[in-house]
Amino acid sequence: MRIPKIVILGAGYGGLITAVRLQKQLGVNEAEVVLVNKNDYHYETTWLHEASAGTLHHDRVRYDITSVIDRHKVDFVQGTVMEINKEEKKVVLENGEINYDYLVVALGGEPETFGIKGLKEFAFGITNVNSSRQLREHIEYQFATYNIEEEKKDERLTIVVGGAGFTGIEFLGELGNRIPELCQEYDVDFNKVRVICVEAAPTVLPGFDPELVDYAVAVLEQKGVEFMIGTAIKECTPEGIIVSKGENETMEIKAETVVWAAGIRGNSVIEKSGFEAMRGRVKVQPDLRVPGFEDVFIIGDCSLVINEEINRPYPPTAQIAIQQGEVVAKNLTALVRGKAELENFVPDIKGTVCSLGEDDAIGVVYGKKLTGGKASIMKKVIDNRSLYLVGGAGLVLKKGKFNIL
Amino acid sequence: MRIPKIVILGAGYGGLITAVRLQKQLGVNEAEVVLVNKNDYHYETTWLHEASAGTLHHDRVRYDITSVIDRHKVDFVQGTVMEINKEEKKVVLENGEINYDYLVVALGGEPETFGIKGLKEFAFGITNVNSSRQLREHIEYQFATYNIEEEKKDERLTIVVGGAGFTGIEFLGELGNRIPELCQEYDVDFNKVRVICVEAAPTVLPGFDPELVDYAVAVLEQKGVEFMIGTAIKECTPEGIIVSKGENETMEIKAETVVWAAGIRGNSVIEKSGFEAMRGRVKVQPDLRVPGFEDVFIIGDCSLVINEEINRPYPPTAQIAIQQGEVVAKNLTALVRGKAELENFVPDIKGTVCSLGEDDAIGVVYGKKLTGGKASIMKKVIDNRSLYLVGGAGLVLKKGKFNIL
Repeated sequence: MRIPKIVILGAGYGGLITAVRLQKQLGVNEAEVVLVNKNDYHYETTWLHEASAGTLHHDRVRYDITSVIDRHKVDFVQGTVMEINKEEKKVVLENGEINYDYLVVALGGEPETFGIKGLKEFAFGITNVNSSRQLREHIEYQFATYNIEEEKKDERLTIVVGGAGFTGIEFLGELGNRIPELCQEYDVDFNKVRVICVEAAPTVLPGFDPELVDYAVAVLEQKGVEFMIGTAIKECTPEGIIVSKGENETMEIKAETVVWAAGIRGNSVIEKSGFEAMRGRVKVQPDLRVPGFEDVFIIGDCSLVINEEINRPYPPTAQIAIQQGEVVAKNLTALVRGKAELENFVPDIKGTVCSLGEDDAIGVVYGKKLTGGKASIMKKVIDNRSLYLVGGAGLVLKKGKFNIL
Repeated sequence: MRIPKIVILGAGYGGLITAVRLQKQLGVNEAEVVLVNKNDYHYETTWLHEASAGTLHHDRVRYDITSVIDRHKVDFVQGTVMEINKEEKKVVLENGEINYDYLVVALGGEPETFGIKGLKEFAFGITNVNSSRQLREHIEYQFATYNIEEEKKDERLTIVVGGAGFTGIEFLGELGNRIPELCQEYDVDFNKVRVICVEAAPTVLPGFDPELVDYAVAVLEQKGVEFMIGTAIKECTPEGIIVSKGENETMEIKAETVVWAAGIRGNSVIEKSGFEAMRGRVKVQPDLRVPGFEDVFIIGDCSLVINEEINRPYPPTAQIAIQQGEVVAKNLTALVRGKAELENFVPDIKGTVCSLGEDDAIGVVYGKKLTGGKASIMKKVIDNRSLYLVGGAGLVLKKGKFNIL
């Protein structure tokens, strides 16, 4: 008798949790499990702002996939997914094809540039290990070049961060720590450096408690960040950005570094594969399966789950991806064992903490507002927890954050 | 009675040795000594190939000038020299003017590009701290960017070094150590990296013992360096270089990093100030004074001293600059004390060692040929000696090289 084949696409938070849970729950002879990922490593997406600013080495934000999977139970295939053929139940990779009985799509998101001209070409992203270390190197190169030029170009020392959402604010917090170091490393006058956050929405961190938002803005302003709120980026150019000013006017901000941290959408593979989706995100059933395709689960940034309380989608977070991975693993175990009853995914939002650099943060945890050192410690606890869920105490010891004051 | 004012321009090897010797030899009331330098630090020019490759941090190759001068005896002025008015006996700085009774010109050299098109604009230099750290950052940025591009540009991983003289070869030796590290840091395949040394002369390290040259070439080739000897660079472009091939043909080598390490000339201030000079170098009297200007000494890269044995100028080295500084300090002491008899400068070439990376080198020391570990240790001894001569054992302890096997 052939045992069912489960294929998991993506080793981000959702996919990796699914894999490690399945290897615990299923016996070797119950199912064949294949994990497919572009890289041979997993990275902590929620730590990339640190690798991008240069406050944490990129090797600290990633670990080998084979170090956390049980190779007797899970096969790992390194490959880039091009398309899912859901009728023929197979996945097309750049170099090959894999058939499946059950599929878990956990491919992660992509930056959403909302059609703003030039962003794709000229802005840097905090998207993955490659983009983060390129951004870090780019900033260092600008600082290294400033002194060598006879005619000083102050725009080399200007960093524009597009977006005052979670990623933008956390990145600004790290820059606040990093820039004094860069000034010392490259003999640059701190007063010449400008860090400008441009956000189209009327507030920083929309959806966050206003009192905490005020705290965050005050902390970042004290670190030298300038905020341009309610200001839309019209265009990104090789020289900087053009923003709207008033009704019909525009203004240029010269900056050698523009970072786009404002939007995320689902994976383009979703659309290429013909799933019904909004910006690459599929509205899944409560059991996380795709309506009409009972053998396909979608989790993480490619899934859309509505928060009934406010009738809006939950934001795509690591917390939700991890919880979805746990539910999918349970549901797959049930299906493999011939049970028809599946569990529904009900998000359990324990809290949200947004870091503001090395030792400061804001957050709401179990309904309680936190700022400063306490929030910062809580942030590190959360970061360590995602390691624990995947790789246990061993992984926490290897990759965890212990610089707790 | 007014005491004479001695102004020293430049705090490189020659100028700094002059200053520290004068502060030992002269009493506070014998002369006023002013040291002028562009930066507030001295850097070890002969270590810049390490800072450029990224094998030694640039802060290790420099130290504060005020940490080695006695401020009761020597005034330090940070400023950029624009011109010397030798008739009016004054030095024009970017922000000010200084009069002198005696002047020591120790301004150091500048890269000589021999009029090769594009070199000035598109090639990197191993010239000072600013240029070295920019080069290091540039190489890192190329490696960081390689993986992120969908269409891989292998020229990002190609480094052309123009010149197989001392600086070029030492830089290649460091790259040999650094490139495996860069490959690991940025997940780049070592086999994709190319390091090409292009030299117009018919041999590597002209003037060096042929047996040692063969050793150096073999070591570097084993580290992956390709040599194109007897090949002239015709032009440097934003895409790479164009070299001559045969009589009339040319060939393009695509490379995102081109380093010009082939030529050095004297300082352009020499010509601006109307000194009679060849490529910015003044043929000085045996006592290191300028013919016709008995109050001006020129030492280091701006001075030209003929080696009578072979009727060719001595190469501009740290060893010679240091020895010249010692002689000038003695001669100034004599002049200040009203003695007419000055000492002549006679170079005492103790040896030359060219490093080939962390633990390998070639050299001739006291007439004896050395290779490998022994030569490498000797190189570090030489490096530490220049620190010792300026700042004594304390400076050696602070900045010296002790990674001796």
